Amino acid sequence: MALIVQKYGGSSVADAESIKRVAKRIVDTRRAGHEVVVAVSAMGDTTDELLELAGQVAPMPAPRELDMLLSSGERISMALLAMAIHSMGFEARSFTGSQAGMITDATHGAARIVDVTPVRLREALDDGAIVIVAGFQGFNRDTRDITTLGRGGSDTTAVALAAALRADVCEIYSDVDGIFTADPRVVPRAQKLSSISSEEMLELAANGAKVLYIRAVEYARRHGVLIHARSTFSPDVGTWVVGPGQSLPEGEKGENMEEPIVAGVATDLSQAKITVIGVPDVPGKAADIFKIVAKSGANVDMIVQNASAAATGLADISFTLPKSDATAALKALAGEQSEVGFQSLVHDDQIGKLSIVGAGMRTHSGVAATLFEALSVARINIEMISTSEIRTSVVVRGDNLGEAARVVHSAYGLDGETEAVVYAGTGR
Amino acid sequence: MALIVQKYGGSSVADAESIKRVAKRIVDTRRAGHEVVVAVSAMGDTTDELLELAGQVAPMPAPRELDMLLSSGERISMALLAMAIHSMGFEARSFTGSQAGMITDATHGAARIVDVTPVRLREALDDGAIVIVAGFQGFNRDTRDITTLGRGGSDTTAVALAAALRADVCEIYSDVDGIFTADPRVVPRAQKLSSISSEEMLELAANGAKVLYIRAVEYARRHGVLIHARSTFSPDVGTWVVGPGQSLPEGEKGENMEEPIVAGVATDLSQAKITVIGVPDVPGKAADIFKIVAKSGANVDMIVQNASAAATGLADISFTLPKSDATAALKALAGEQSEVGFQSLVHDDQIGKLSIVGAGMRTHSGVAATLFEALSVARINIEMISTSEIRTSVVVRGDNLGEAARVVHSAYGLDGETEAVVYAGTGR
Repeated sequence: MALIVQKYGGSSVADAESIKRVAKRIVDTRRAGHEVVVAVSAMGDTTDELLELAGQVAPMPAPRELDMLLSSGERISMALLAMAIHSMGFEARSFTGSQAGMITDATHGAARIVDVTPVRLREALDDGAIVIVAGFQGFNRDTRDITTLGRGGSDTTAVALAAALRADVCEIYSDVDGIFTADPRVVPRAQKLSSISSEEMLELAANGAKVLYIRAVEYARRHGVLIHARSTFSPDVGTWVVGPGQSLPEGEKGENMEEPIVAGVATDLSQAKITVIGVPDVPGKAADIFKIVAKSGANVDMIVQNASAAATGLADISFTLPKSDATAALKALAGEQSEVGFQSLVHDDQIGKLSIVGAGMRTHSGVAATLFEALSVARINIEMISTSEIRTSVVVRGDNLGEAARVVHSAYGLDGETEAVVYAGTGR
Repeated sequence: MALIVQKYGGSSVADAESIKRVAKRIVDTRRAGHEVVVAVSAMGDTTDELLELAGQVAPMPAPRELDMLLSSGERISMALLAMAIHSMGFEARSFTGSQAGMITDATHGAARIVDVTPVRLREALDDGAIVIVAGFQGFNRDTRDITTLGRGGSDTTAVALAAALRADVCEIYSDVDGIFTADPRVVPRAQKLSSISSEEMLELAANGAKVLYIRAVEYARRHGVLIHARSTFSPDVGTWVVGPGQSLPEGEKGENMEEPIVAGVATDLSQAKITVIGVPDVPGKAADIFKIVAKSGANVDMIVQNASAAATGLADISFTLPKSDATAALKALAGEQSEVGFQSLVHDDQIGKLSIVGAGMRTHSGVAATLFEALSVARINIEMISTSEIRTSVVVRGDNLGEAARVVHSAYGLDGETEAVVYAGTGR
């Protein structure tokens, strides 16, 4: 008998039929003799609808009240799920974040988990019940107020419960079959990975892969939780996300247990590029620029400074950042133009970022050369390059990103023999 | 400075616009220098929609989970209302039933309030905040589970809060202007009462009047809470519901402070009549019949036994009960026909009940004669009669109920000079 934590996202419980299907899946797990704890998101677009309502009654909703509002979404889905399980003849009990002992700090809208005290969940499990917990929400002990964890909160709830209950595995269900070597909508010959290291998963998620939230993977890595990313709509094994020193459950094995040089290719169209032209090439100018950008609240990703032209004594500095941060950053920079002494600003929101991620890059030299070669053959121009220990990223024209991903995927021998099945949604 | 508890029903907070209107009303009360505590229902048809969803996932939803589900409705409306008030520059805090200290027994779906400990509400009021509380819901201390109070629960929440906080008045808002001498949709010349005694209000509510729930009026009577039933859409004074020994706030006076003989006429089309024909006229037979009916779960209202025909030794017994209880009662009786020895059953769901209610009936004789006379002149046949200390009810054909109400209303001198304005909804 194992203790299994399962997480179902909003699209998995979008309507009564979906809820019944998920209930059956949970009951099957219980029937197999396991203890089951489920973290569930709000139904379908409930959270967005509630946010819209909030916007209609108040232009800047009070954060405490916004959390009170949003937390009702999971309350609905979890109660319905518990009912559905109950009507299949199994005992099920639903718990709010506060009842589940999900203790957070008091940062409404983006609360951090500070403690998990799942006393009532353990009691319910000991009574033989299936436990359903509201994802995304917690409780602050000092203010006695409801909090929410922010984007990806339900994944984090599931992983945090798995850690606190010492679960054998945390299954994150979505409408995709697992983690792929690339986004199958971009690279049709992408293959499902049977396993991936958590550090590779973190790099993929940070660079555009959308199946798991970084925060949940980080939490799992820190607390030794084994994640199994799999599909709500299929009984097949998905992808195991394995932390340091962890091994797969008995009987399960990754097909690619030998460390791959490149685990996957991530693509990201969500970034923009800003180039600061004609920056005086004297020490401290780059620091000035990024202080200004940071103060605007923008999250800078890649930075490239070109070689200074000796004749002019001026350099250009380019950086990428989320498209949604670009306006604020441009405004902040323009406001300090005379102070910094640069000539002009160029804003480019037609870029695409491609990253290859693989733990093998640590020990194999020349891995990036294959990337550059493949893009060169395809006549795709590289505009920026950045690297980490296990990742190389390049910026290309957004129009070229799909083709770039396909040729790179192929160059690293990642292509499958058949095309992957692609679903409409993203499973969040 | 007074402490005012206000209750807004679902139709008063049906959408963002309504919520903003209610928020403004609350802010106006606060601005006038009063402390304000608001009990709010779920938006519009939310509760019915949640019930329908529940029915889709489970034919017989688990009661604990149904309460968890339904309690999310008020969570949404109260958070939105608090946000709207907040954005008008006033401090507002919303509280769930559990946070508000609404302690109930563990009867899911129809919990009884056992204690109210509004510590957090008092703190918030002392901080100068407007307090918004989820109506309809509570919390059981032993199971630590969420409960709901059942139909009319939000009215009861408001009155219970008013009692626990020693509020000066409990204002129950709806889309009607107050308590009328009759339902204005049935009797166009019905007049708004400026005040009514709580015992008369109880009789009217028990006999078909829909503005206030019996349970809330009972609670108010027992705990000395002054109720003011008024309209969300008008600043006018509504109707004061005055308990024994209570007086109206300074400056307010009922126009009809002299005890009226008849305060109002109530009409009710929700009942059916069952007649048990040919019951052996021996002691104990009526008891047998009503034991069977009670066991079927039916709630018997009026009972009439005709004089036994000496020749046959058989009597007929008629009784009324809610239409929804009739099938179960008929089935139960039919199952015991040979045991009881009656001849047949007649089911009649085309009846209407008319009641006149007035505390003056205690001290004035012959009040009912006016009722019988008026119906006789209108050639409306009376099928059953029952009386209490301050009420006389008659059963007539359902088709005749409207006309019966109009002639009786007129006969007691209750007609106003103009027709009352009638709204579409019922304000629940």
